[in-house]
Amino acid sequence: MKLIAKLSMVAALVCAAACAQNSASSEPSALDVIMNRKSVRAYTEEPVTQAQVETILKAAMAAPTGMNMQPWRFVVVRDQAVKDVLAGPRGGMIAQAPVVIVVCGETSFMRRPFGAPEDAEAVETPNGNWTADCAAATENLLLAVEALGLGACWTACYPYEDRMTPTREVLGLPDNVSPYCIVPMGYPAGDDQPKDKWKPENIHYDKW
Amino acid sequence: MKLIAKLSMVAALVCAAACAQNSASSEPSALDVIMNRKSVRAYTEEPVTQAQVETILKAAMAAPTGMNMQPWRFVVVRDQAVKDVLAGPRGGMIAQAPVVIVVCGETSFMRRPFGAPEDAEAVETPNGNWTADCAAATENLLLAVEALGLGACWTACYPYEDRMTPTREVLGLPDNVSPYCIVPMGYPAGDDQPKDKWKPENIHYDKW
Repeated sequence: MKLIAKLSMVAALVCAAACAQNSASSEPSALDVIMNRKSVRAYTEEPVTQAQVETILKAAMAAPTGMNMQPWRFVVVRDQAVKDVLAGPRGGMIAQAPVVIVVCGETSFMRRPFGAPEDAEAVETPNGNWTADCAAATENLLLAVEALGLGACWTACYPYEDRMTPTREVLGLPDNVSPYCIVPMGYPAGDDQPKDKWKPENIHYDKW
Repeated sequence: MKLIAKLSMVAALVCAAACAQNSASSEPSALDVIMNRKSVRAYTEEPVTQAQVETILKAAMAAPTGMNMQPWRFVVVRDQAVKDVLAGPRGGMIAQAPVVIVVCGETSFMRRPFGAPEDAEAVETPNGNWTADCAAATENLLLAVEALGLGACWTACYPYEDRMTPTREVLGLPDNVSPYCIVPMGYPAGDDQPKDKWKPENIHYDKW
Protein backbone atom coordinates (compact mmCIF):
# COMPACT_ATOMS: atom_id res chain seq x y z
CA MET A 1 0.00 0.00 0.00
CA LYS A 2 2.79 2.38 0.82
CA LEU A 3 4.29 2.01 -2.64
CA ILE A 4 0.87 2.48 -4.26
CA ALA A 5 0.25 5.60 -2.16
CA LYS A 6 3.60 7.03 -3.24
CA LEU A 7 2.94 6.22 -6.87
CA SER A 8 -0.49 7.84 -6.68
CA MET A 9 1.04 10.96 -5.17
CA VAL A 10 3.65 11.13 -7.92
CA ALA A 11 0.93 10.65 -10.55
CA ALA A 12 -1.15 13.41 -8.96
CA LEU A 13 1.83 15.78 -8.88
CA VAL A 14 2.74 15.06 -12.50
CA CYS A 15 -0.90 15.61 -13.45
CA ALA A 16 -1.12 18.91 -11.55
CA ALA A 17 2.12 20.12 -13.10
CA ALA A 18 0.93 19.21 -16.60
CA CYS A 19 -2.37 21.01 -16.08
CA ALA A 20 -0.66 24.08 -14.61
CA GLN A 21 1.74 24.25 -17.53
CA ASN A 22 -1.18 23.91 -19.93
CA SER A 23 -3.01 26.75 -18.23
CA ALA A 24 0.09 28.94 -18.01
CA SER A 25 0.76 28.58 -21.72
CA SER A 26 -2.85 29.43 -22.72
CA GLU A 27 -3.29 32.98 -23.95
CA PRO A 28 -5.79 35.41 -22.40
CA SER A 29 -9.35 35.12 -23.74
CA ALA A 30 -10.70 37.62 -26.25
CA LEU A 31 -13.35 39.02 -23.92
CA ASP A 32 -10.80 39.45 -21.11
CA VAL A 33 -8.42 41.31 -23.42
CA ILE A 34 -11.23 43.54 -24.72
CA MET A 35 -12.33 44.41 -21.18
CA ASN A 36 -8.77 44.86 -19.88
CA ARG A 37 -7.40 47.02 -22.69
CA LYS A 38 -6.41 50.40 -21.37
CA SER A 39 -4.51 53.46 -22.57
CA VAL A 40 -0.88 53.21 -21.51
CA ARG A 41 1.02 56.48 -21.75
CA ALA A 42 4.42 55.64 -20.17
CA TYR A 43 6.78 52.86 -21.20
CA THR A 44 9.89 51.13 -19.88
CA GLU A 45 13.05 51.00 -21.98
CA GLU A 46 12.54 47.29 -22.74
CA PRO A 47 12.52 46.97 -26.52
CA VAL A 48 9.55 45.78 -28.55
CA THR A 49 10.74 43.09 -30.96
CA GLN A 50 10.15 42.92 -34.69
CA ALA A 51 8.24 39.65 -34.11
CA GLN A 52 5.88 41.47 -31.73
CA VAL A 53 5.40 44.28 -34.26
CA GLU A 54 4.51 41.71 -36.93
CA THR A 55 1.97 39.97 -34.68
CA ILE A 56 0.42 43.36 -33.92
CA LEU A 57 0.23 44.28 -37.62
CA LYS A 58 -1.18 40.87 -38.57
CA ALA A 59 -3.99 41.58 -36.11
CA ALA A 60 -4.45 45.06 -37.62
CA MET A 61 -4.70 43.69 -41.17
CA ALA A 62 -7.30 41.12 -40.05
CA ALA A 63 -9.81 43.96 -39.51
CA PRO A 64 -12.94 44.25 -41.63
CA THR A 65 -12.65 46.54 -44.65
CA GLY A 66 -15.33 47.96 -46.91
CA MET A 67 -15.42 46.32 -50.37
CA ASN A 68 -12.23 44.47 -49.31
CA MET A 69 -10.23 47.60 -50.29
CA GLN A 70 -7.69 47.20 -47.43
CA PRO A 71 -6.76 50.90 -47.62
CA TRP A 72 -4.67 50.74 -44.41
CA ARG A 73 -0.95 51.47 -44.51
CA PHE A 74 1.40 51.35 -41.52
CA VAL A 75 4.60 53.21 -40.76
CA VAL A 76 6.60 51.64 -37.92
CA VAL A 77 8.81 54.29 -36.37
CA ARG A 78 11.84 53.63 -34.15
CA ASP A 79 13.95 56.60 -35.37
CA GLN A 80 14.10 59.12 -32.51
CA ALA A 81 14.22 62.16 -34.82
CA VAL A 82 11.01 61.03 -36.56
CA LYS A 83 9.31 60.26 -33.24
CA ASP A 84 10.18 63.74 -31.97
CA VAL A 85 8.45 65.34 -34.96
CA LEU A 86 5.39 63.08 -34.55
CA ALA A 87 5.24 63.98 -30.85
CA GLY A 88 5.09 67.69 -31.62
CA PRO A 89 3.99 70.08 -28.90
CA ARG A 90 1.73 67.38 -27.39
CA GLY A 91 5.03 65.88 -26.29
CA GLY A 92 5.73 62.96 -24.04
CA MET A 93 4.59 59.50 -24.84
CA ILE A 94 5.16 59.51 -28.61
CA ALA A 95 8.75 60.65 -28.17
CA GLN A 96 9.34 58.25 -25.29
CA ALA A 97 7.84 55.04 -26.71
CA PRO A 98 10.29 52.42 -28.08
CA VAL A 99 7.99 51.93 -31.09
CA VAL A 100 5.36 54.19 -32.66
CA ILE A 101 3.01 52.91 -35.35
CA VAL A 102 1.40 55.53 -37.58
CA VAL A 103 -1.80 54.14 -39.08
CA CYS A 104 -2.43 55.71 -42.49
CA GLY A 105 -4.98 55.14 -45.20
CA GLU A 106 -5.39 55.49 -48.94
CA THR A 107 -8.23 57.97 -49.26
CA SER A 108 -9.04 57.14 -52.88
CA PHE A 109 -8.77 54.34 -55.39
CA MET A 110 -8.84 53.98 -59.16
CA ARG A 111 -11.91 52.54 -60.84
CA ARG A 112 -14.10 52.75 -63.88
CA PRO A 113 -17.09 55.04 -63.26
CA PHE A 114 -20.28 53.05 -62.46
CA GLY A 115 -22.04 52.10 -65.70
CA ALA A 116 -19.10 53.06 -67.90
CA PRO A 117 -18.08 50.61 -70.67
CA GLU A 118 -15.51 47.98 -69.78
CA ASP A 119 -12.72 49.68 -71.67
CA ALA A 120 -13.37 53.07 -70.03
CA GLU A 121 -10.45 54.62 -68.19
CA ALA A 122 -10.29 54.21 -64.40
CA VAL A 123 -10.66 57.48 -62.51
CA GLU A 124 -9.62 58.43 -59.00
CA THR A 125 -12.62 57.78 -56.72
CA PRO A 126 -12.86 58.74 -53.02
CA ASN A 127 -13.04 55.80 -50.60
CA GLY A 128 -15.81 56.67 -48.11
CA ASN A 129 -14.74 53.83 -45.81
CA TRP A 130 -11.05 54.58 -45.34
CA THR A 131 -11.40 56.09 -41.84
CA ALA A 132 -13.65 53.24 -40.67
CA ASP A 133 -11.18 50.64 -41.96
CA CYS A 134 -8.21 52.40 -40.34
CA ALA A 135 -10.09 52.69 -37.02
CA ALA A 136 -11.03 49.00 -37.03
CA ALA A 137 -7.41 48.09 -37.81
CA THR A 138 -6.24 50.36 -34.99
CA GLU A 139 -8.57 48.71 -32.47
CA ASN A 140 -7.32 45.24 -33.49
CA LEU A 141 -3.76 46.53 -33.13
CA LEU A 142 -4.48 47.82 -29.60
CA LEU A 143 -6.03 44.51 -28.57
CA ALA A 144 -3.02 42.59 -29.89
CA VAL A 145 -0.77 44.94 -27.90
CA GLU A 146 -2.78 44.14 -24.76
CA ALA A 147 -2.74 40.39 -25.50
CA LEU A 148 1.07 40.51 -25.75
CA GLY A 149 1.42 42.23 -22.37
CA LEU A 150 2.42 45.52 -23.96
CA GLY A 151 0.65 48.88 -23.63
CA ALA A 152 -0.31 51.56 -26.15
CA CYS A 153 -2.34 54.70 -26.58
CA TRP A 154 -4.43 55.76 -29.61
CA THR A 155 -3.68 59.40 -30.31
CA ALA A 156 -5.80 61.09 -32.96
CA CYS A 157 -4.15 62.65 -36.01
CA TYR A 158 -6.97 62.87 -38.59
CA PRO A 159 -9.00 65.10 -38.89
CA TYR A 160 -6.74 67.69 -37.20
CA GLU A 161 -4.70 69.54 -39.85
CA ASP A 162 -2.15 70.82 -37.30
CA ARG A 163 -1.25 67.21 -36.54
CA MET A 164 -1.67 65.79 -40.04
CA THR A 165 0.62 68.23 -41.84
CA PRO A 166 3.85 67.55 -39.87
CA THR A 167 3.07 63.81 -39.88
CA ARG A 168 2.64 63.79 -43.66
CA GLU A 169 5.86 65.74 -44.11
CA VAL A 170 8.16 63.81 -41.79
CA LEU A 171 6.97 60.44 -43.14
CA GLY A 172 6.94 61.58 -46.76
CA LEU A 173 3.46 60.21 -47.43
CA PRO A 174 2.14 60.07 -51.02
CA ASP A 175 -0.66 62.50 -51.92
CA ASN A 176 -3.43 59.89 -51.76
CA VAL A 177 -2.33 58.59 -48.35
CA SER A 178 -3.50 60.36 -45.20
CA PRO A 179 -2.26 59.79 -41.68
CA TYR A 180 -5.09 58.55 -39.47
CA CYS A 181 -3.74 58.06 -35.95
CA ILE A 182 -0.47 57.66 -34.06
CA VAL A 183 0.01 54.78 -31.61
CA PRO A 184 3.00 54.81 -29.25
CA MET A 185 3.62 51.45 -27.57
CA GLY A 186 5.98 49.61 -25.23
CA TYR A 187 6.03 47.72 -21.95
CA PRO A 188 3.91 49.62 -19.39
CA ALA A 189 6.00 51.64 -16.91
CA GLY A 190 3.10 52.15 -14.49
CA ASP A 191 0.00 50.29 -13.44
CA ASP A 192 -2.67 51.73 -15.71
CA GLN A 193 -6.10 50.17 -15.25
CA PRO A 194 -9.06 49.95 -17.67
CA LYS A 195 -11.94 52.40 -17.20
CA ASP A 196 -15.44 51.05 -16.56
CA LYS A 197 -17.49 52.65 -19.37
CA TRP A 198 -20.51 50.34 -19.22
CA LYS A 199 -23.66 52.49 -19.34
CA PRO A 200 -26.96 50.68 -19.98
CA GLU A 201 -28.53 54.10 -20.66
CA ASN A 202 -26.53 54.20 -23.91
CA ILE A 203 -28.66 51.31 -25.22
CA HIS A 204 -32.06 51.72 -26.85
CA TYR A 205 -34.40 48.98 -28.06
CA ASP A 206 -36.06 49.04 -31.49
CA LYS A 207 -36.41 52.84 -31.42
CA TRP A 208 -34.60 55.66 -29.64
CA MET B 1 2.80 -4.88 -10.48
CA LYS B 2 -0.52 -5.54 -12.20
CA LEU B 3 -2.43 -3.52 -9.62
CA ILE B 4 0.06 -0.68 -9.84
CA ALA B 5 -0.18 -0.65 -13.61
CA LYS B 6 -3.97 -0.46 -13.40
CA LEU B 7 -3.82 2.33 -10.84
CA SER B 8 -1.37 4.27 -13.00
CA MET B 9 -3.68 3.90 -15.96
CA VAL B 10 -6.65 5.14 -13.94
CA ALA B 11 -4.58 8.09 -12.69
CA ALA B 12 -3.51 8.92 -16.24
CA LEU B 13 -7.10 8.79 -17.50
CA VAL B 14 -8.37 10.98 -14.65
CA CYS B 15 -5.55 13.40 -15.37
CA ALA B 16 -6.27 13.49 -19.11
CA ALA B 17 -9.99 14.03 -18.47
CA ALA B 18 -9.27 16.85 -16.04
CA CYS B 19 -6.91 18.55 -18.50
CA ALA B 20 -9.37 18.13 -21.38
CA GLN B 21 -12.19 19.66 -19.37
CA ASN B 22 -9.94 22.53 -18.42
CA SER B 23 -9.07 23.14 -22.05
CA ALA B 24 -12.70 22.75 -23.25
CA SER B 25 -13.97 25.34 -20.78
CA SER B 26 -11.30 27.93 -21.68
CA GLU B 27 -12.45 30.65 -24.06
CA PRO B 28 -10.69 31.29 -27.40
CA SER B 29 -7.62 33.52 -27.17
CA ALA B 30 -7.74 37.15 -28.23
CA LEU B 31 -5.32 36.70 -31.12
CA ASP B 32 -7.24 33.66 -32.41
CA VAL B 33 -10.52 35.57 -32.32
CA ILE B 34 -8.97 38.57 -34.09
CA MET B 35 -7.54 36.35 -36.83
CA ASN B 36 -10.72 34.23 -37.16
CA ARG B 37 -13.28 37.05 -37.25
CA LYS B 38 -15.06 37.05 -40.58
CA SER B 39 -18.09 38.69 -42.15
CA VAL B 40 -21.14 36.45 -41.73
CA ARG B 41 -24.05 37.39 -43.98
CA ALA B 42 -26.56 34.55 -43.39
CA TYR B 43 -27.98 33.42 -40.05
CA THR B 44 -29.99 30.53 -38.64
CA GLU B 45 -33.26 31.15 -36.84
CA GLU B 46 -31.69 30.38 -33.46
CA PRO B 47 -32.31 33.43 -31.28
CA VAL B 48 -29.58 35.63 -29.84
CA THR B 49 -30.22 36.10 -26.12
CA GLN B 50 -30.40 39.36 -24.20
CA ALA B 51 -27.41 38.14 -22.15
CA GLN B 52 -25.38 37.73 -25.37
CA VAL B 53 -26.40 41.20 -26.53
CA GLU B 54 -25.25 42.66 -23.19
CA THR B 55 -21.88 40.89 -23.39
CA ILE B 56 -21.46 42.24 -26.92
CA LEU B 57 -22.34 45.78 -25.86
CA LYS B 58 -20.07 45.61 -22.81
CA ALA B 59 -17.24 44.82 -25.22
CA ALA B 60 -18.31 47.72 -27.45
CA MET B 61 -18.32 50.21 -24.57
CA ALA B 62 -14.84 49.06 -23.51
CA ALA B 63 -13.39 50.67 -26.66
CA PRO B 64 -11.03 53.64 -26.46
CA THR B 65 -12.69 57.04 -26.78
CA GLY B 66 -11.17 60.47 -27.38
CA MET B 67 -11.22 62.70 -24.27
CA ASN B 68 -13.30 59.92 -22.62
CA MET B 69 -16.40 61.38 -24.32
CA GLN B 70 -18.03 57.94 -24.94
CA PRO B 71 -20.20 59.36 -27.76
CA TRP B 72 -21.42 55.89 -28.83
CA ARG B 73 -25.11 55.02 -28.61
CA PHE B 74 -26.62 51.65 -29.59
CA VAL B 75 -30.04 50.71 -30.89
CA VAL B 76 -30.76 46.99 -30.60
CA VAL B 77 -33.40 46.06 -33.17
CA ARG B 78 -35.50 42.87 -33.13
CA ASP B 79 -38.70 44.43 -34.56
CA GLN B 80 -39.11 43.07 -38.10
CA ALA B 81 -40.72 46.25 -39.45
CA VAL B 82 -37.76 48.32 -38.27
CA LYS B 83 -35.27 45.78 -39.66
CA ASP B 84 -37.01 45.92 -43.04
CA VAL B 85 -36.57 49.70 -43.22
CA LEU B 86 -32.91 49.43 -42.14
CA ALA B 87 -32.33 46.77 -44.80
CA GLY B 88 -33.63 49.05 -47.54
CA PRO B 89 -32.90 48.16 -51.14
CA ARG B 90 -29.59 46.53 -50.08
CA GLY B 91 -31.89 43.80 -48.74
CA GLY B 92 -31.06 40.45 -47.30
CA MET B 93 -28.99 40.04 -44.23
CA ILE B 94 -30.26 43.02 -42.20
CA ALA B 95 -33.88 41.91 -42.67
CA GLN B 96 -33.00 38.28 -41.98
CA ALA B 97 -30.81 38.61 -38.87
CA PRO B 98 -32.43 37.83 -35.51
CA VAL B 99 -30.76 40.92 -34.03
CA VAL B 100 -29.44 44.08 -35.64
CA ILE B 101 -27.38 46.60 -33.69
CA VAL B 102 -27.25 50.13 -35.09
CA VAL B 103 -24.15 51.89 -33.80
CA CYS B 104 -24.79 55.63 -33.52
CA GLY B 105 -22.78 58.55 -32.18
CA GLU B 106 -23.30 61.96 -30.65
CA THR B 107 -21.61 64.24 -33.15
CA SER B 108 -21.31 67.20 -30.78
CA PHE B 109 -21.13 67.99 -27.10
CA MET B 110 -21.68 71.03 -24.92
CA ARG B 111 -18.70 72.86 -23.48
CA ARG B 112 -17.36 76.25 -22.56
CA PRO B 113 -15.27 77.70 -25.38
CA PHE B 114 -11.52 77.30 -24.77
CA GLY B 115 -10.22 80.20 -22.67
CA ALA B 116 -13.70 81.45 -21.75
CA PRO B 117 -14.33 82.38 -18.09
CA GLU B 118 -15.62 79.61 -15.83
CA ASP B 119 -19.14 80.99 -15.72
CA ALA B 120 -19.38 81.29 -19.52
CA GLU B 121 -22.23 79.38 -21.14
CA ALA B 122 -21.48 76.00 -22.73
CA VAL B 123 -21.87 75.95 -26.50
CA GLU B 124 -22.44 73.07 -28.88
CA THR B 125 -19.01 71.90 -30.10
CA PRO B 126 -18.37 69.29 -32.83
CA ASN B 127 -16.70 66.08 -31.63
CA GLY B 128 -13.96 65.33 -34.17
CA ASN B 129 -13.52 61.83 -32.74
CA TRP B 130 -17.08 60.48 -32.86
CA THR B 131 -16.56 58.32 -35.96
CA ALA B 132 -13.28 56.88 -34.62
CA ASP B 133 -14.92 56.02 -31.29
CA CYS B 134 -17.91 54.40 -32.99
CA ALA B 135 -15.62 52.39 -35.29
CA ALA B 136 -13.50 51.14 -32.38
CA ALA B 137 -16.67 50.17 -30.49
CA THR B 138 -17.95 48.37 -33.59
CA GLU B 139 -14.74 46.35 -33.94
CA ASN B 140 -14.90 45.30 -30.27
CA LEU B 141 -18.53 44.33 -30.81
CA LEU B 142 -17.61 42.17 -33.83
CA LEU B 143 -14.85 40.43 -31.90
CA ALA B 144 -17.22 39.69 -29.01
CA VAL B 145 -19.68 38.26 -31.54
CA GLU B 146 -16.93 35.98 -32.87
CA ALA B 147 -15.84 34.99 -29.35
CA LEU B 148 -19.44 33.95 -28.54
CA GLY B 149 -19.66 31.72 -31.63
CA LEU B 150 -22.02 34.12 -33.38
CA GLY B 151 -21.46 35.86 -36.72
CA ALA B 152 -22.02 39.44 -37.88
CA CYS B 153 -21.30 41.84 -40.71
CA TRP B 154 -20.36 45.54 -40.48
CA THR B 155 -22.45 47.42 -43.04
CA ALA B 156 -21.61 51.08 -43.53
CA CYS B 157 -24.27 53.74 -42.97
CA TYR B 158 -22.26 56.98 -42.39
CA PRO B 159 -21.24 58.87 -44.55
CA TYR B 160 -23.86 57.78 -47.11
CA GLU B 161 -26.90 60.06 -46.89
CA ASP B 162 -29.17 57.60 -48.75
CA ARG B 163 -28.60 55.11 -45.93
CA MET B 164 -28.44 57.60 -43.05
CA THR B 165 -31.76 59.36 -43.72
CA PRO B 166 -34.08 56.32 -43.50
CA THR B 167 -32.10 55.00 -40.51
CA ARG B 168 -32.45 58.31 -38.66
CA GLU B 169 -36.16 58.43 -39.43
CA VAL B 170 -37.13 54.87 -38.53
CA LEU B 171 -35.16 54.97 -35.26
CA GLY B 172 -36.26 58.52 -34.38
CA LEU B 173 -32.71 59.66 -33.61
CA PRO B 174 -32.18 63.06 -31.93
CA ASP B 175 -30.63 65.82 -34.08
CA ASN B 176 -27.16 65.52 -32.52
CA VAL B 177 -27.04 61.74 -32.95
CA SER B 178 -25.94 60.24 -36.27
CA PRO B 179 -26.18 56.61 -37.32
CA TYR B 180 -22.71 55.21 -37.96
CA CYS B 181 -23.08 51.58 -39.06
CA ILE B 182 -25.57 48.72 -39.03
CA VAL B 183 -24.53 45.29 -37.75
CA PRO B 184 -26.80 42.28 -38.36
CA MET B 185 -25.88 39.23 -36.27
CA GLY B 186 -26.94 35.69 -35.44
CA TYR B 187 -25.70 32.13 -35.52
CA PRO B 188 -23.89 31.50 -38.83
CA ALA B 189 -25.99 29.57 -41.37
CA GLY B 190 -23.03 28.75 -43.59
CA ASP B 191 -19.33 28.16 -43.19
CA ASP B 192 -17.82 31.59 -43.79
CA GLN B 193 -14.05 31.70 -43.42
CA PRO B 194 -11.74 34.63 -42.60
CA LYS B 195 -9.83 36.26 -45.47
CA ASP B 196 -6.03 36.36 -45.37
CA LYS B 197 -5.25 40.09 -45.71
CA TRP B 198 -1.66 40.00 -44.46
CA LYS B 199 0.46 42.10 -46.82
CA PRO B 200 3.98 43.01 -45.65
CA GLU B 201 4.11 45.58 -48.48
CA ASN B 202 1.59 47.66 -46.50
CA ILE B 203 4.27 48.24 -43.86
CA HIS B 204 6.92 50.96 -44.05
CA TYR B 205 9.76 51.60 -41.64
CA ASP B 206 10.58 55.07 -40.27
CA LYS B 207 9.63 56.74 -43.57
CA TRP B 208 7.35 55.85 -46.47
